Amino acid sequence: MDAEPETEADSVLAEYAAEACRRMAAGLLEHTGSELRSFLGAETARLRAALDDPATLEPAEAPHDPPRFSRKGHVVINTNPVTSHRNVLAPLLTEKFDGDWAIATVGPLSRQFQGPRGKLHGGYVGVLLDQVLWDAVFHRLGAASFTRTLNITYESPVPLGEELTIEGRVTSVDGRKTFAEGELRCGDTVCARAEGLWVSPR
Amino acid sequence: MDAEPETEADSVLAEYAAEACRRMAAGLLEHTGSELRSFLGAETARLRAALDDPATLEPAEAPHDPPRFSRKGHVVINTNPVTSHRNVLAPLLTEKFDGDWAIATVGPLSRQFQGPRGKLHGGYVGVLLDQVLWDAVFHRLGAASFTRTLNITYESPVPLGEELTIEGRVTSVDGRKTFAEGELRCGDTVCARAEGLWVSPR
Repeated sequence: MDAEPETEADSVLAEYAAEACRRMAAGLLEHTGSELRSFLGAETARLRAALDDPATLEPAEAPHDPPRFSRKGHVVINTNPVTSHRNVLAPLLTEKFDGDWAIATVGPLSRQFQGPRGKLHGGYVGVLLDQVLWDAVFHRLGAASFTRTLNITYESPVPLGEELTIEGRVTSVDGRKTFAEGELRCGDTVCARAEGLWVSPR
Repeated sequence: MDAEPETEADSVLAEYAAEACRRMAAGLLEHTGSELRSFLGAETARLRAALDDPATLEPAEAPHDPPRFSRKGHVVINTNPVTSHRNVLAPLLTEKFDGDWAIATVGPLSRQFQGPRGKLHGGYVGVLLDQVLWDAVFHRLGAASFTRTLNITYESPVPLGEELTIEGRVTSVDGRKTFAEGELRCGDTVCARAEGLWVSPR
């Protein structure tokens, strides 16, 4: 069954709830015992208050990711786990395109993304690179492709708590095959590189 | 500052809160408008009730991931974003070891992990493979290594809503270098393969 359309105020509320869950995700890994109970109590009360009176959240700005209508008239929610403000998992990567380049920034990232102590989980290094390279390919082709291969080289651990830059670009297009490469940097340090192959649907 | 130790009941409460946030993460991408407000209201009320009276959660079983003490006596929380019941992001992969193999199952996964419609985000295919191959290497060496390369080949989209199996094993060890490979399957279908190189600290 399709989701119903919603008001802009409800979209703002949904993104507020997602952000509350993001804070709880971080807090659950930073606090223990009575400190954690106080933290969760305060977050739950704030969320409860927003649900009881969404008008308190009346947006200064519009929601980032309101549901849109598909061409067939269905309500479509942006579920992207890297970029959508409505997805609790999303590190909220923001992106722009400059010529051939997709250039994204993200962070500082909190503890729910931790692998080694104080460092980003290696799988999530891949998540960020996968998304930005896919977006670079999409931007170049103007259409979605399937990721066929993604090869990641880890140069240096990625710190949590710092802003990160991820850049990707298409290096060549050969029929249905598109090749792209990119890197993830923290300041001037290249922490990881990636290259891969994307294939357009027939 | 170190986190304080906590009771087993508080660890159960923390994992309950993480699971509530996981349900909200899924629900925020499944519901809109008044339906979403009802859903969030019910989840918030349940979490509130658990915080007000944690005794209602008194565990039939112990918490999955209670904080432990490090050798230096610090309280250490398992933050792993793939396996820890205390991490909201975690798809709660479970794993066993059989000879050279690390064998893991996960899912069914909900919509917060969605990339293409009804399919797992490609970056998260990598997250699952990264974790299991790392664990296979750790299991073989008995010590942590740094991931140096991870090469993923995507064979077939990974459906949400199904149980997935991820297997990894070490293929060779050469001094500080350990090579491993693995695959992610849904039923009999191999959806993705990975191979990589891990390097032991000097």
